[in-house]
Amino acid sequence: MSDISTVKALVFDVFGTVVDWRSSLIADFTAWGGKRGINADWTALVDGWRAVYAASMDEVRKHPERGYVILDVLHRRSLESLVAQLSISGLSDDDLNHLTMGWHRLHPWPDSVAGLRRLKTKYIIGPLSNGNVALLTNMAKFACLPWDLILSAELFEHYKPDPETYLGAARLLGLSPQQVMMVAAHNHDLKAAQKLGLKTAFVARPTEYGPLQKYDFAATGDWDIVAKDFGGIAERTGC
Amino acid sequence: MSDISTVKALVFDVFGTVVDWRSSLIADFTAWGGKRGINADWTALVDGWRAVYAASMDEVRKHPERGYVILDVLHRRSLESLVAQLSISGLSDDDLNHLTMGWHRLHPWPDSVAGLRRLKTKYIIGPLSNGNVALLTNMAKFACLPWDLILSAELFEHYKPDPETYLGAARLLGLSPQQVMMVAAHNHDLKAAQKLGLKTAFVARPTEYGPLQKYDFAATGDWDIVAKDFGGIAERTGC
Repeated sequence: MSDISTVKALVFDVFGTVVDWRSSLIADFTAWGGKRGINADWTALVDGWRAVYAASMDEVRKHPERGYVILDVLHRRSLESLVAQLSISGLSDDDLNHLTMGWHRLHPWPDSVAGLRRLKTKYIIGPLSNGNVALLTNMAKFACLPWDLILSAELFEHYKPDPETYLGAARLLGLSPQQVMMVAAHNHDLKAAQKLGLKTAFVARPTEYGPLQKYDFAATGDWDIVAKDFGGIAERTGC
Repeated sequence: MSDISTVKALVFDVFGTVVDWRSSLIADFTAWGGKRGINADWTALVDGWRAVYAASMDEVRKHPERGYVILDVLHRRSLESLVAQLSISGLSDDDLNHLTMGWHRLHPWPDSVAGLRRLKTKYIIGPLSNGNVALLTNMAKFACLPWDLILSAELFEHYKPDPETYLGAARLLGLSPQQVMMVAAHNHDLKAAQKLGLKTAFVARPTEYGPLQKYDFAATGDWDIVAKDFGGIAERTGC
């Protein structure tokens, strides 16, 4: 059994790990579209939006000379392309903004809030997400996520899985990497964290991508904790 | 009456405004010194430590080429000088570290936690302090301060009252300066914030410096809110 007695802080991937972005956005946009009388395949929009997420961050990574661009802005740019591709018409600038801010209004998985409350009694807890600070702060208010602080790629001007994010989180907390545990539903996120010395915890979120889910059904690395959900991490850590 | 309907977030000065650093440190060090058998004028140490605080940050401000230095490190450097000046002997490196970390173990004023809880129901709340992120995060755990996020001079690599701190806080929150209210027991902090467009709230903490208190007994500017304590700010904002 892995030694996790050094751990002082738990940092969490957010999209997919803490919140169910896909169901949340589809429900939000479907209800809103109905009221506004805008007919569209919102599921296709949401899936298409997430499909270009990695590429949009790669652009920032490839062009440091252009400066860091926060996720709200990347989301807005991707949305404009997708709306054209999917021939969704009748959207004003305010409407596009409302849809973009949908990423601030995501619902947690059923176990997330209760699990975080338990973990918070023993550890410092915070997101370590590619979402920008305002997105993560607004989401926490919306979803009652009891974070101690907000850690975001924006603070380091690097997107995960760049090392600056994991090491920057430990540095801001005044901790060594071994004192920080990364919690994620994505094996690649944990792999990057583990390589830098962070402890790791995996929870499976097999419905994150709905029928499109292709991987991350189970742990594929030697993680310090593998649990069914956040309650399972709390059990394992004695919270 | 000033219009504060635009405000979405309240950011707080911490040392003196939220926590009673002087009484906390004197009590902490006196108890610790008693157990360790170290005799010293802890009140003189604490007052002397705070007296060189502004000058230690000025050094950072004057020498940007040396890079930003976090408050924990400034505190430690000042402590080493003071211990020599006050002829306190028998302190190991671990002891000096324990004393420096005293700034992470400060107690709130009696109204702080209840007031913050009320304000949090309506606003995003966070510190905006010269304390580093780890200091503010550890203090929040110690003192049960229910922050939504931790905003610190460290994130902007500038100490208050540099404009980068107030404007940086608004930027990270995705808000305009008019949507952010600075809360402080120090008129000079509010003056710097107001000049940049932030809203302002003053609370008097007339015992912050004990018998050494020289100013900030009352509001000296045209602040949006002047209240007796955090409960008064909650009343005024309808929380």
